[in-house]
Amino acid sequence: MNISPTVVVREVGLRDGLQSIPRTRLNTDQKLEWIREAYEAGQREIEVGSFVPARLLPQLADTEALVAYARTLPGLTTSVLVPNLKGADKALASGADLMVMPLSASHAHSLANLRKTPDEVVTEVGRIRAARDVAGAKTLIEGGVGTAFGCSIQGHVDEDEVLRLALALLDAGADRLSLADTVGYADPQQVKRLFEKVLRAVGDRLCCAHFHDTRGLGMANLYATYELGIRRFDACLAGIGGCPHAPGASGNVATEDVVYLFSSMGVKSGQDLALLLALRAKVAGWLDGELLGGSIALAGLPKTLSEARHMAVVA
Amino acid sequence: MNISPTVVVREVGLRDGLQSIPRTRLNTDQKLEWIREAYEAGQREIEVGSFVPARLLPQLADTEALVAYARTLPGLTTSVLVPNLKGADKALASGADLMVMPLSASHAHSLANLRKTPDEVVTEVGRIRAARDVAGAKTLIEGGVGTAFGCSIQGHVDEDEVLRLALALLDAGADRLSLADTVGYADPQQVKRLFEKVLRAVGDRLCCAHFHDTRGLGMANLYATYELGIRRFDACLAGIGGCPHAPGASGNVATEDVVYLFSSMGVKSGQDLALLLALRAKVAGWLDGELLGGSIALAGLPKTLSEARHMAVVA
Repeated sequence: MNISPTVVVREVGLRDGLQSIPRTRLNTDQKLEWIREAYEAGQREIEVGSFVPARLLPQLADTEALVAYARTLPGLTTSVLVPNLKGADKALASGADLMVMPLSASHAHSLANLRKTPDEVVTEVGRIRAARDVAGAKTLIEGGVGTAFGCSIQGHVDEDEVLRLALALLDAGADRLSLADTVGYADPQQVKRLFEKVLRAVGDRLCCAHFHDTRGLGMANLYATYELGIRRFDACLAGIGGCPHAPGASGNVATEDVVYLFSSMGVKSGQDLALLLALRAKVAGWLDGELLGGSIALAGLPKTLSEARHMAVVA
Repeated sequence: MNISPTVVVREVGLRDGLQSIPRTRLNTDQKLEWIREAYEAGQREIEVGSFVPARLLPQLADTEALVAYARTLPGLTTSVLVPNLKGADKALASGADLMVMPLSASHAHSLANLRKTPDEVVTEVGRIRAARDVAGAKTLIEGGVGTAFGCSIQGHVDEDEVLRLALALLDAGADRLSLADTVGYADPQQVKRLFEKVLRAVGDRLCCAHFHDTRGLGMANLYATYELGIRRFDACLAGIGGCPHAPGASGNVATEDVVYLFSSMGVKSGQDLALLLALRAKVAGWLDGELLGGSIALAGLPKTLSEARHMAVVA
């Protein structure tokens, strides 16, 4: 791994993907195998789980063990989601490199999902920052602004409100931000407009884009943010993370498709597509019967990509 | 229909879609119903079939009857594909508004598919132009440059060769051009580079983009050409047109998804998404068991789109 990657495709399948599958399908050993093989395929940032109460998301109850293992892999950024101060305390104790605190820009979604208003979430981020400072920990705090492009409960989400909340998160002590199209509502022009607006205000502290492919525009939206200079993207192996309320509708953009996109464009992601596709096949086997997404695993790599030996270059 | 659409989403499902389904699944009455309801949904350009020998593509043998019907619909641009002068003669006799003559920029694909070199196809376009001039017909000739972004037989296709052939087609008498990613190899940066190159040379005579979504990048590629000023796009209802050699791999970009993209962006396509989705459901029923694509039909329209009443605006 001597080549410095120019984009980071951040694996969030173990968290965003698995949390959307109601039953616990993977045991801890399988998750450790996933993390190890993702690492071997060149992934250097993995969201391994979420410090939420096990009674709410039993399928993520082994997050602490996953963080402990992930920390043993040199150069891996180990990320977790935290819903509140209690979760953040666990994340700080676990030694995770990064904790993502979700905030829903849709007030209706925020109340339904987090049982807090967005401004209450901002206040909680302030407490999390204080806890980190007291602990003297290095765990980064990323504010994940979700439903930034619309909400399936509330409908329209005001762009100025997204900007206000983004600024409030940074003021409260978040180190950086991501914008998420949680419900797959975004289109590329809207993405461009909102990312530009927030980038103008906060610069490179907006450093991650999170898209779902629910309505077929995930890759177009992601490409639009790449064009704006975003270089870090969330994705789920096998495109898991589909919405249970929309049967057949695909989930997060698929990691292997995003890596394929960048390989095709000659942009280094540091990931080896062949190893990634082998891991995808294994995980797809474990998740047999669940809704999977992604195109490249079905269609196969184009002849042009093997010819150009991009796979060797990115490995 | 008082609002002038700013993009044309050209239906090619009756030709590119149905020709990729080996068996004849639709009878002529069903196709007439498809054309009528597509027209009622606001479609104003439909490629109804192909003047190829019936023994090669029996599923398109009723093209003449379809053209005759389509010509009765006011304001509809009736398009057909023609593989050679013989087909063009039929197209001219039928009174079609537009004939698309495919040329494969990949020499290997051209020989395998059309049994001619690309330059022999250029020569044939010269003959077709002469036939049109002799007939005094108004049927436009569009050169469709396929495998422009790579070929599953040959692999890499040289961009300068695509440009040379595009210019040669215009020199030989084609009125205008489209570029097609026939095998789903393109990525958005490549699309941008090649469209820019050809646009610089021929201006708005390059007026159509044709993408397959085989590897998940169809919509991103299409969006990249929209950003460059392209305003006419081929698409297949229900995303039919998948490649029989890649089971599960999706086909052409889905008409309803492309119309959804533009509706989301507030760009007028003149098409009514609700009517289009109703037609999509009907055609999907007729094609039960075939590989279908497209996302919006599965996921449903976002709340934001109904709120904004884009559907009323575009209808």
